[in-house]
Amino acid sequence: MKKHYHQPMSANQMAKFGGPTTFMRLPALETPEGLDVGIVGVPLDTASSYRVGSRFGPRAIRAESTPIRPYNLATRLSPFDHLAVADLGDAPINPYNPFASIDSIEGFFDHILAAGCRPLALGGEHTVTLPILRAIQKKHGPVALVHVDAHADVNDTMLGEKVAHGTPFRRAFEENLLLPERVVQIGLRATGYSAEEFDWSRKAGFRVVQAEECWHRSLAPLMDEVRERMGSAPVYVSFDIDALDPAFAPGTGTPEIGGLTTIQGIEIMRGCRGLNIVGGDVVEVSPPYDIQSITATTAANLAFELLCSFVDGGVR
Amino acid sequence: MKKHYHQPMSANQMAKFGGPTTFMRLPALETPEGLDVGIVGVPLDTASSYRVGSRFGPRAIRAESTPIRPYNLATRLSPFDHLAVADLGDAPINPYNPFASIDSIEGFFDHILAAGCRPLALGGEHTVTLPILRAIQKKHGPVALVHVDAHADVNDTMLGEKVAHGTPFRRAFEENLLLPERVVQIGLRATGYSAEEFDWSRKAGFRVVQAEECWHRSLAPLMDEVRERMGSAPVYVSFDIDALDPAFAPGTGTPEIGGLTTIQGIEIMRGCRGLNIVGGDVVEVSPPYDIQSITATTAANLAFELLCSFVDGGVR
Amino acid sequence: MKKHYHQPMSANQMAKFGGPTTFMRLPALETPEGLDVGIVGVPLDTASSYRVGSRFGPRAIRAESTPIRPYNLATRLSPFDHLAVADLGDAPINPYNPFASIDSIEGFFDHILAAGCRPLALGGEHTVTLPILRAIQKKHGPVALVHVDAHADVNDTMLGEKVAHGTPFRRAFEENLLLPERVVQIGLRATGYSAEEFDWSRKAGFRVVQAEECWHRSLAPLMDEVRERMGSAPVYVSFDIDALDPAFAPGTGTPEIGGLTTIQGIEIMRGCRGLNIVGGDVVEVSPPYDIQSITATTAANLAFELLCSFVDGGVR
Amino acid sequence: MKKHYHQPMSANQMAKFGGPTTFMRLPALETPEGLDVGIVGVPLDTASSYRVGSRFGPRAIRAESTPIRPYNLATRLSPFDHLAVADLGDAPINPYNPFASIDSIEGFFDHILAAGCRPLALGGEHTVTLPILRAIQKKHGPVALVHVDAHADVNDTMLGEKVAHGTPFRRAFEENLLLPERVVQIGLRATGYSAEEFDWSRKAGFRVVQAEECWHRSLAPLMDEVRERMGSAPVYVSFDIDALDPAFAPGTGTPEIGGLTTIQGIEIMRGCRGLNIVGGDVVEVSPPYDIQSITATTAANLAFELLCSFVDGGVR
Amino acid sequence: MKKHYHQPMSANQMAKFGGPTTFMRLPALETPEGLDVGIVGVPLDTASSYRVGSRFGPRAIRAESTPIRPYNLATRLSPFDHLAVADLGDAPINPYNPFASIDSIEGFFDHILAAGCRPLALGGEHTVTLPILRAIQKKHGPVALVHVDAHADVNDTMLGEKVAHGTPFRRAFEENLLLPERVVQIGLRATGYSAEEFDWSRKAGFRVVQAEECWHRSLAPLMDEVRERMGSAPVYVSFDIDALDPAFAPGTGTPEIGGLTTIQGIEIMRGCRGLNIVGGDVVEVSPPYDIQSITATTAANLAFELLCSFVDGGVR
Amino acid sequence: MKKHYHQPMSANQMAKFGGPTTFMRLPALETPEGLDVGIVGVPLDTASSYRVGSRFGPRAIRAESTPIRPYNLATRLSPFDHLAVADLGDAPINPYNPFASIDSIEGFFDHILAAGCRPLALGGEHTVTLPILRAIQKKHGPVALVHVDAHADVNDTMLGEKVAHGTPFRRAFEENLLLPERVVQIGLRATGYSAEEFDWSRKAGFRVVQAEECWHRSLAPLMDEVRERMGSAPVYVSFDIDALDPAFAPGTGTPEIGGLTTIQGIEIMRGCRGLNIVGGDVVEVSPPYDIQSITATTAANLAFELLCSFVDGGVR
Repeated sequence: MKKHYHQPMSANQMAKFGGPTTFMRLPALETPEGLDVGIVGVPLDTASSYRVGSRFGPRAIRAESTPIRPYNLATRLSPFDHLAVADLGDAPINPYNPFASIDSIEGFFDHILAAGCRPLALGGEHTVTLPILRAIQKKHGPVALVHVDAHADVNDTMLGEKVAHGTPFRRAFEENLLLPERVVQIGLRATGYSAEEFDWSRKAGFRVVQAEECWHRSLAPLMDEVRERMGSAPVYVSFDIDALDPAFAPGTGTPEIGGLTTIQGIEIMRGCRGLNIVGGDVVEVSPPYDIQSITATTAANLAFELLCSFVDGGVR
Repeated sequence: MKKHYHQPMSANQMAKFGGPTTFMRLPALETPEGLDVGIVGVPLDTASSYRVGSRFGPRAIRAESTPIRPYNLATRLSPFDHLAVADLGDAPINPYNPFASIDSIEGFFDHILAAGCRPLALGGEHTVTLPILRAIQKKHGPVALVHVDAHADVNDTMLGEKVAHGTPFRRAFEENLLLPERVVQIGLRATGYSAEEFDWSRKAGFRVVQAEECWHRSLAPLMDEVRERMGSAPVYVSFDIDALDPAFAPGTGTPEIGGLTTIQGIEIMRGCRGLNIVGGDVVEVSPPYDIQSITATTAANLAFELLCSFVDGGVR
Repeated sequence: MKKHYHQPMSANQMAKFGGPTTFMRLPALETPEGLDVGIVGVPLDTASSYRVGSRFGPRAIRAESTPIRPYNLATRLSPFDHLAVADLGDAPINPYNPFASIDSIEGFFDHILAAGCRPLALGGEHTVTLPILRAIQKKHGPVALVHVDAHADVNDTMLGEKVAHGTPFRRAFEENLLLPERVVQIGLRATGYSAEEFDWSRKAGFRVVQAEECWHRSLAPLMDEVRERMGSAPVYVSFDIDALDPAFAPGTGTPEIGGLTTIQGIEIMRGCRGLNIVGGDVVEVSPPYDIQSITATTAANLAFELLCSFVDGGVR
Repeated sequence: MKKHYHQPMSANQMAKFGGPTTFMRLPALETPEGLDVGIVGVPLDTASSYRVGSRFGPRAIRAESTPIRPYNLATRLSPFDHLAVADLGDAPINPYNPFASIDSIEGFFDHILAAGCRPLALGGEHTVTLPILRAIQKKHGPVALVHVDAHADVNDTMLGEKVAHGTPFRRAFEENLLLPERVVQIGLRATGYSAEEFDWSRKAGFRVVQAEECWHRSLAPLMDEVRERMGSAPVYVSFDIDALDPAFAPGTGTPEIGGLTTIQGIEIMRGCRGLNIVGGDVVEVSPPYDIQSITATTAANLAFELLCSFVDGGVR
Repeated sequence: MKKHYHQPMSANQMAKFGGPTTFMRLPALETPEGLDVGIVGVPLDTASSYRVGSRFGPRAIRAESTPIRPYNLATRLSPFDHLAVADLGDAPINPYNPFASIDSIEGFFDHILAAGCRPLALGGEHTVTLPILRAIQKKHGPVALVHVDAHADVNDTMLGEKVAHGTPFRRAFEENLLLPERVVQIGLRATGYSAEEFDWSRKAGFRVVQAEECWHRSLAPLMDEVRERMGSAPVYVSFDIDALDPAFAPGTGTPEIGGLTTIQGIEIMRGCRGLNIVGGDVVEVSPPYDIQSITATTAANLAFELLCSFVDGGVR
Repeated sequence: MKKHYHQPMSANQMAKFGGPTTFMRLPALETPEGLDVGIVGVPLDTASSYRVGSRFGPRAIRAESTPIRPYNLATRLSPFDHLAVADLGDAPINPYNPFASIDSIEGFFDHILAAGCRPLALGGEHTVTLPILRAIQKKHGPVALVHVDAHADVNDTMLGEKVAHGTPFRRAFEENLLLPERVVQIGLRATGYSAEEFDWSRKAGFRVVQAEECWHRSLAPLMDEVRERMGSAPVYVSFDIDALDPAFAPGTGTPEIGGLTTIQGIEIMRGCRGLNIVGGDVVEVSPPYDIQSITATTAANLAFELLCSFVDGGVR
């Protein structure tokens, strides 16, 4: 199939508030064939521990992506000049059965990856990263991981369950989906059930960057270190919006104070430029807890910044 | 083109909060060919007199239409078994130039009507009904009108302007777009700039049903009278959501207390069954003033009820 | 001083959302001389028992009064053609000292009444009616009362205090500010601290109309009875917005379900036409608990309807 | 254990906004021994089909129950003079495993019922009624049912699942938890996946009262019929807050327009007086979609009205 | 006319939530004669590209200015001891005709400037700066400009229109209203329709300070540079509230992430002290998208800080 | 009484959104005997100068404390392993009588302190710190004070009243409740009624840290200075949530722009570790002005951070 560089619908063609509410008003396609990157919603939220509602995350992020224009004025880059991108709709999930949902999500991403298309997922809660990583592993083998989050998400179980939004990276580690020495967790903070909670990650070989390490400074130097650590390995980028402080991202399920600023979030996404990115996600946007859609707006723009870093994977 | 009876995407195929945000998750088509009814958004709000924001009305109504299922359990009717219906997207408007917008809206509806497709429009503010009626008149000649509203919208001018959301039916009358004896205005109330404000409508031959006439009662008997008045004439149905009391429809530009209940709104829409409906609209939904989308939900359901009344036009 | 019939600023002079935020954009005057009716804000809320915030009630009601036009289209009456009306600003209150506030409010109304001006007050919580009635009594002697409310407000004390928003009519009765046989309390309901709570009112000679008596019907017949009971006595009308059901008036301090509809509120205000009204108030609007200002909008319109009933006091 | 008639904490002891946020500020007890009625929260929402969030329902209903006073002024009854009532906290649920939750809920209610205590549950979504009915059946055998809801909740499956918030009464029927001829479903409306959706209920022997049958009228006559149908059978009362129109109860997961008024809700609850009530619930309150807690306030008051009808079960 | 140094109404005279809602409760005057600075609302929002509602900006900013006290505790300066300031109300605009509005705004500012009064405008969207600059130019000739904004607003056209909220500074440049070498644009960022979008400004001679240049640092040094660039030229200061990050100013029409902090906004306003300021504005506050009025509060305080910098223009 | 180290209810026992809404789901005790620290709500808000509603602060802070887990992952400390902590409910207040409330609050804290229990209070408005300090002084003599606030709260009177939320530290100074040389006020800013407003504090010997001194930097070095100044004196920590910028803490009564970040708030609380803390408070959280409870969430976490600093008082 001949590659077509789809352009977002322009506000000079249709006012920003009109037209379809696909991601950036890109075409809605039913098949990933011929695409470099596919935007996918994963509206699962049934495994959240506190506030729910991220099932409406993909819809809200897409709606607030509509005013984003194609050129990134800081980096002077338009991903749509370099990548064939479209919106592939939502992965099928079953809100009544979280276990079945995990499987159907994996199948959906298998299909996308089989076509040589890199997925950029919009959550949904963080549980969805597990089936995506399972599909990624089948395609690429274990991957490096840039994981931005308030929480390490490496619990063994939650209320006895193995699959919940606080466990995906423990599972991923156990299932050899990750290259542990090339996992970086950024923004971890807050409270836990033991004093050593973050030490599991460290023992697993992950680089843990607690939020305190990020306070009052640019994260550009940190991203230099991250890129060095990642090398040319295939990388997955998973951005839990609760990495940001609730002032910047109130619409999320388990807000934790003292988090990153949006600016730091942008620095992380831009700092991924040059990595060999094979997929990524922005998760845990919960619209019923959002205010005037600022969290969705932030997530949409961070997804766009990440998309820019998909360009020329491995070349900086 | 062979007619295809499109069905809304079922929640047994994709959970209600997933999938496209077209009206009822119907297919998004680019052409009206082969359709009986086309859903069209008209996101114009630049001629509002008080609160604005109805430019986001079509988007919000579509979003909240997604959980509506195809069968109307009160009337046991599914419009999709009888009519080929799809979502035709938004009419092009120019938010910087209300005058140009009026013309581009008319052109968009000309195109739909030329294909033999009946339009069901989602506003946007009430000004949009004027260009739609102009297009309708070219196809059908002057039409009967069921106009549900808190305001008569028959001002000559507003701040000197001929085109504004309080003037469309004065213009329509002047331009012979209407059959005056077959115009009914339901729900009028509140305050004005002269004691005789509603008398212009009466002198024009319209049947004026002030809100007070509707208080504390079913509107089914009124709709019997309306159907008799309309006879077999082609009918346009224009429902300004501010006809409803602000308790039922807070998200609108010029709320007026003492209005209809949602139940009365349903009675009106169902009471249009049997009319020879050639088009209709639900307008003035202003999402920034809505609360938890209840106005958009109400508008979406009223549009669905109206769609049901499009079935077997003229047969009851 | 020659009487001047001030007109609200017209939307044909200044768009509705511009201009001053006095009541209906009437002139702001510093003195009541020459006025028939003075609009007064009373931003006291320190004696509320549950939710607070009605200190912002006058500001919000005035803001939402700006789109009201001068002619009442149902009654075809403009109060401004018959009465000299202006906005007299706010009564001085002291948020740190409820006791001192009661006195300063009384003084402010003394001054208005001394000029032969009838006050129409915007609350503020219901405690404010007590000092107003004290001032009224000095001018007019004991008065008849149309009291619309979810609560009887006839507690002896609240947490031991004589002055609180649940006690004003007990105090007024004790101080001979009222003509008990000409007191009507409409809309009472909900729960209390004894089974006989409303019987105090009945024993005092008041006519108690519990909310249940109002359900599912027009209140026009009740108002016929009320006017007969009032005769030509001077009448004060006190409308606590919590008389309305929370669906119609969520922005209030002690919402009670099962209340009046806005339509019934309008019927009460219009039903006061012909009474010898010497003053009135609309109280307990709490903007921080309001949603999209619908409670303030409702209060503004009810105040306008009451103002219409000030015309030709005693003549119907 | 000697029965103790617990009284709600009085606002004359502690201001309404202080003190514990148990139901009506009743004592929080850990055991049902010696109680006539136990208030129980069931914060499960993982099987909702559209909007989620009812996991916070019990917390919100309790918070807004704090200003309710013990005497019902319409019925002059205080349930606390006749019944030993306390708040038993929340049933244990597992948000990551809906299937396990159903079982743990049943166990919790088994324990309450074993003590001779009648449960009054606060949801959570409607799925929770199934395990409660299972527990009820073990104690009382099949029961009569007053089911107030916008939806019949008698689907066979949802997305293939047997347990979801649209299926509990189908399961209850199949498991012989109900006396079908003594089941009444009130308020049904809206849309479905077949024209005959409500006919399953009718064929099962249920009395179906569609919302249209309730419009514009008091439900007191209907409740006379209901009481006659119920006779002296043990009755469970299940009130889904979405039975009410969204204007009255916006904070719910699947709002449907054209519903009951709050007043009709009160009439239903009061109309249950005299039935042999063995348990009941108020479910589907979703606080993240609520506005200024009016849905929670309504649910709290309806639960109180239902509690009043627990008094002298079978005696009217 | 003798100059009178009007003082804001003190909270020791009237509680902060009472009194008029003019800017800082200054006197409302109808004429600029004798004033040094006049506060003017410009409630135009019809040329916004995404979210609307800034027509209510002046009203909201004034309301939230009421608790500001006259002395700036950081700079120990009260503008009211040095400048005769009053609130001149709103410029006349026509919401149905943006083109006519541009002209009527210009006329209103002509009148103010003719009296020797410096305008401090409250928007309204950014289009309003164009007619103000036209009026300023007639009085002062081309001016220097401190332009704080997320967007350069130098588009040639938007949907073919020359006048829209993304074009005013292109027009101003073309019409020689500006001294290009003394134009500074601070805070620019986000996305555009070409990679070179900010280069137009640079080619025009403007100093462009992209947001990235501002991240993680004080803007006091930048303002030193700005003052040097401006010299003694007459300066206009235009502050688009969307310069701030959405966390600090959510209530605006086209929010862009990664913006300035409020602290940086204060630094800019204080850093203008010593410039020869001939006028200024704070624009694009959109109350329907605001949350708890924090954007309006911020705008009111920034306007106050700017007013402080009007003192002793040119002297530092 | 044997000391019992109560643990918060674990989310592995009961999902976070279930269970009691005491602080961190600690036991609710009726007596302070045997406790090291008692959490106390003080729901007084009747002496606020602008926005009210902090009476609901304790309830909201407790609700949002429920997801906090016991271990502080930055400091690796769990206060519950070292201190016996429980929730002592609310101090009795009288919303109709601020003067009586001040006395009843003092009595409640006398009782707690007499048991050797250190109080950690949740406001309510800042007036409540005065009676707490009075009680503290009786137990400990004059104390050092870490006062974090946007306002100095050292007015002599407000509208003539000695007791109001802007006066407590003036009163405390006059009554010798403080060690003036060991008082630090952090975060002061905004506007006042004289240029010298903060100089009173300085003259009294307080260390005043204006907000500007805190901008763009870590407060860890400041806290080093604070600890040195405090030495081993008994210290009270009073944190007014309006010290934070409105972006971080919108839900408060008198928001002032340009404030501290949440991160700086955490630094202050953690920086108190090692002080000899005898009590503390977090005040001025106003839930009706909060958005999605982020202010309450922030306050709950800051209270937890402060609680951690109660451990090993005087040892670092």
